[in-house]
Amino acid sequence: MRVVAALGGNALSPTGGTGSVEEMRAALTSTARSLAGLIADGHSLVLTHGNGPQVGRILLQQELAAGQVPPMPMDVCGAESQGQLGYLLAQALDNALGAQSRVLCLVTQVVVNGRDPAFRRPSKPVGPAYPRPVAQRIAHESGHVFAVQPNGTWRRVVASPLPLRIVEEAPLRALVDAGHVVVAAGGGGVPVVEHRGKLRGVEAVVDKDRTAALLARSVGADRLVVLTEVAQVQVGYGTPSARALDRLTVAETRKLLDAGEFPPGSMGPKVEACVDFAASGGTAVIASLADAAAAVRGEAGTEVVPG
Amino acid sequence: MRVVAALGGNALSPTGGTGSVEEMRAALTSTARSLAGLIADGHSLVLTHGNGPQVGRILLQQELAAGQVPPMPMDVCGAESQGQLGYLLAQALDNALGAQSRVLCLVTQVVVNGRDPAFRRPSKPVGPAYPRPVAQRIAHESGHVFAVQPNGTWRRVVASPLPLRIVEEAPLRALVDAGHVVVAAGGGGVPVVEHRGKLRGVEAVVDKDRTAALLARSVGADRLVVLTEVAQVQVGYGTPSARALDRLTVAETRKLLDAGEFPPGSMGPKVEACVDFAASGGTAVIASLADAAAAVRGEAGTEVVPG
Repeated sequence: MRVVAALGGNALSPTGGTGSVEEMRAALTSTARSLAGLIADGHSLVLTHGNGPQVGRILLQQELAAGQVPPMPMDVCGAESQGQLGYLLAQALDNALGAQSRVLCLVTQVVVNGRDPAFRRPSKPVGPAYPRPVAQRIAHESGHVFAVQPNGTWRRVVASPLPLRIVEEAPLRALVDAGHVVVAAGGGGVPVVEHRGKLRGVEAVVDKDRTAALLARSVGADRLVVLTEVAQVQVGYGTPSARALDRLTVAETRKLLDAGEFPPGSMGPKVEACVDFAASGGTAVIASLADAAAAVRGEAGTEVVPG
Repeated sequence: MRVVAALGGNALSPTGGTGSVEEMRAALTSTARSLAGLIADGHSLVLTHGNGPQVGRILLQQELAAGQVPPMPMDVCGAESQGQLGYLLAQALDNALGAQSRVLCLVTQVVVNGRDPAFRRPSKPVGPAYPRPVAQRIAHESGHVFAVQPNGTWRRVVASPLPLRIVEEAPLRALVDAGHVVVAAGGGGVPVVEHRGKLRGVEAVVDKDRTAALLARSVGADRLVVLTEVAQVQVGYGTPSARALDRLTVAETRKLLDAGEFPPGSMGPKVEACVDFAASGGTAVIASLADAAAAVRGEAGTEVVPG
């Protein structure tokens, strides 16, 4: 089976950690063990991953070093985070597989629409949290947009447009066809706009689960697996009547989304990505990282199926 | 013809510039125009490039932000620079070609020998130059080795071991066979050592021209083109009897190398890389970036041929 798996932040470094390379290597070694089982089952695999905390640290480095090193814009920082995480993930997975040169990382651009309404309403927080006066100073100096967060701090916000096309789709397919495990579109891909056939990076962040669904369609995947910290999706989450879901159709899932069952900041985008992929005829599943192999076999997680 | 082209620092950002993304984009647009002619001639192309100033800036960012962001080690910084430069170079070249998704960047690891004598004698300067007291403080805090430079400043020095194997050799060949232009092994590749089948990054820098020669052998290239700032290699460089060279055999080149004609810091590694590749049966050429297409046709630069 051809599988696209999306890794969340916890698969890359521990929540609340310092972000050191030792922490990342430890988390990735454990992640690689979970994924190795899936590859051992004979599936072909495309991996994608988030980059929130990692690109956040790269953005903070840009800022703290700005007196001596010209800061790179967001698209370039995203590409740097793809290099960083792709290298570490490919190496960890190769080491877990004990095979030679099976896993590789493709720096990946994703085309977005420059007129996407998201550009008029930047909402995705990126980089560090600041007290108001510091945020105001940085906004003044850089032209960046800041927004107050639920906890009262201020963070830079950027647009989160929809991904339309994977620029490297053809080579990606060629590599998967040739039997390679490919890490692609890390952090949702580097967002670019296309104008008269030319590409240009933009200051935005594409949701990594949305891109995972696009990636799954682009490589003709049989199954999209969104790996996260929970074993299954629940309705009535956090209430006494909470109930875990085994299997939903696209129509059932859309009803639950409309009813506001899945919050926009957390489970919402994952469920939407699953609907997106299942609506195109595939099967999507949300599961915990430890259950990756079982989720591909249909024995764990919450499945979203066509219909 | 299958061509591996190695780009020097001037192809990526202007010498003596600030390192801003605007400068890099301008330099890469011009570089892309030179390379587009080569692709228009129908050649298949693998691109590799240096990363000295760029990874130097990333290393400086690690240091200046170290109070708030744990610094990444050298292998990870190298992978970040591959993402940064590979993204910008692939985009610039795609835009120059006016074609869709032909150019892509593969994050690339290069195996070195952990017992390479270079590890006992670190000599390759990386990152910023410091006055002695600052270098001593950093050396004390980090355990890094520093060495005095010809201009009296101090810089961190790391080992520059020989590259033995491109980890991603098989997928790289598959991509070139499929007609893609691939950016690979930027900055000489991320150096890793292999121990009982497992890879681990090391704090070292592989010479990018050496890696270019290995890359050329690995993908079965017909021609290795080392692009630099000068039109031809000279003997008696800087003397009244200076003479530009059109064509040399491996044996002639080795004699000139032994006679100390090519200084270790500049033309030496380029000439050695050409000898390495020509000794394996290919033709290597050193030429200026503007002459890239002509150099592939055998009409510019200095050729090193078997024999």
